[in-house]
Amino acid sequence: RRQQTQEPEALVTEILKGNITALSQAITLIESTQPDHLQKANKIIMGCLPHSRKSVRVGITGIPGVGKSTFIEALGMQLINDNKKVAVLAVDPSSSVSKGSILGDKTRMESLVKSNKAFIRPSASGNSLGGVARKTRESIILCEAAGFDTILIETVGVGQSETAVHGMVDFFLLLKIAGAGDELQGIKRGIMEMADAIVINKADGDNITRAKNAKVDFSRALHLYPPKTSGWVPTVSLCSALENTGIKELWLTIEAFVQKTKISGHFESNRIDQNKQWLKQTIEDRITRNFYKRSEIKAELSKQIQLIEAGETTPFAAADYLLSL
Amino acid sequence: RRQQTQEPEALVTEILKGNITALSQAITLIESTQPDHLQKANKIIMGCLPHSRKSVRVGITGIPGVGKSTFIEALGMQLINDNKKVAVLAVDPSSSVSKGSILGDKTRMESLVKSNKAFIRPSASGNSLGGVARKTRESIILCEAAGFDTILIETVGVGQSETAVHGMVDFFLLLKIAGAGDELQGIKRGIMEMADAIVINKADGDNITRAKNAKVDFSRALHLYPPKTSGWVPTVSLCSALENTGIKELWLTIEAFVQKTKISGHFESNRIDQNKQWLKQTIEDRITRNFYKRSEIKAELSKQIQLIEAGETTPFAAADYLLSL
Repeated sequence: RRQQTQEPEALVTEILKGNITALSQAITLIESTQPDHLQKANKIIMGCLPHSRKSVRVGITGIPGVGKSTFIEALGMQLINDNKKVAVLAVDPSSSVSKGSILGDKTRMESLVKSNKAFIRPSASGNSLGGVARKTRESIILCEAAGFDTILIETVGVGQSETAVHGMVDFFLLLKIAGAGDELQGIKRGIMEMADAIVINKADGDNITRAKNAKVDFSRALHLYPPKTSGWVPTVSLCSALENTGIKELWLTIEAFVQKTKISGHFESNRIDQNKQWLKQTIEDRITRNFYKRSEIKAELSKQIQLIEAGETTPFAAADYLLSL
Repeated sequence: RRQQTQEPEALVTEILKGNITALSQAITLIESTQPDHLQKANKIIMGCLPHSRKSVRVGITGIPGVGKSTFIEALGMQLINDNKKVAVLAVDPSSSVSKGSILGDKTRMESLVKSNKAFIRPSASGNSLGGVARKTRESIILCEAAGFDTILIETVGVGQSETAVHGMVDFFLLLKIAGAGDELQGIKRGIMEMADAIVINKADGDNITRAKNAKVDFSRALHLYPPKTSGWVPTVSLCSALENTGIKELWLTIEAFVQKTKISGHFESNRIDQNKQWLKQTIEDRITRNFYKRSEIKAELSKQIQLIEAGETTPFAAADYLLSL
């Protein structure tokens, strides 16, 4: 029976009914490296595409220890109580070794895992961020077709993964905790500028004063940035995923964002821009990879780099030479 | 006689003697679009290359009105009094229309223009930042071969021009003025993170208190960023290019940076990284451009984008299709 539901058309039909087993199987095909699986995956994606795009996509980043799992559990349960269907996906290119290092520990999302209105999927594995991100973006389409109206996409922020997640969501959320005086340190370059909201988690117990101070610091810091093209002014708020405070307010903020950007047209135009960007980037990644794969380029590239290092040629002359091969 | 010195070998010989007329002529060849000029230019660059790389390269950015020309005049005269030879170049891709819109008005650098230890060259013209940046980088090589030990590269920050300049200098300087309470607003994304120094200009007269407040704000803001790979902690300082205050101190800061990073090895490794980056980018720009120039791609690309916008294909499927043509 299982074999039968692996057929693309049957899987699409089941996915459109909200069948989570079928959804899982289809995502497994997307994540496969076997050519026949990928062919099936492409058919499924095309079948789901007309039924996708109706969700709100929220990206969530924050360093390990910030309480992402607990936060997603709290936010997810809030949404489910609000009668929403929540899919939780992840982008973690480092998980190629220990497949699914993010969200692998589903025990941290106990309630969400049990709910039939939630779908949780660990990061696809893969060596390249491009590959992992592509699989996640295609999984979003399937989740949306399966009726999930809220997609949460988690990243730990390895390499450029935050930028990749930012490029596939409507709203981007930076989760922080107040530390011992250095709460504003160690924010990766560019992350704060991407955030639509900064949420300071673990604002509970002895931590509240520190969290409040951090909020002031972050609010001040956000002032440094120029207005966003969305017209949205990023918010800074406190929450305690543990005590379930600040979560509902955060979701109201996200809803306000969605409402505002849908009226202004930014919501839709941003998605179109994201798609164009992915088209462009996919093409450029692929033709670049093909170029460097050529045997004559492989042989000459390192020689040219040595000549550049020795000051015997310029990067431009080296490029001219390599392109003439 | 002029015709004779246009020969590459002769020009190289003259450039190495510090002949500014020959340097100008050679840069004109670099900036030319005529194939025979470019061939000559390449020969000159190769001839100068072994004699280059011995300078300190400083990038200077800041919005119009910040007093960049006056600042460069003051810094340049300081350096010349310090027995240095200063070349001032510019990267301004917008200058394709009004050729040389930066530095076009040399009257603002009255003393520097008159000095035989200074060489001032407006931005090359060109529609693409890549092209303009390449010409500037090649001009740096020639200036260094001509004995200029300090290269100041100015940009107004159109599009990605600051990133391009950041990628060709050892030290990157953001020039600001204190405004009416909104001095921290309107900093372009990513610029502050690139800065090795923020200098608040026009800290004179009634403006001093505002400038001091801005200094506090910027110092606090810089704290938000993670440490730089250079190990350098960006500085914030005041200056008045008009009253010639703070300029000498700034140069001491730059010298401290150079000393520190030369000892740590960052100075050299950064230049090698920059060159590798330019090699990579030149190759990728070129093969991408060649791809989009193909007539069958031109014809199909806009159709695929329409299909994406209509939700009838995915960016990945569209890329697959275009790459199969």
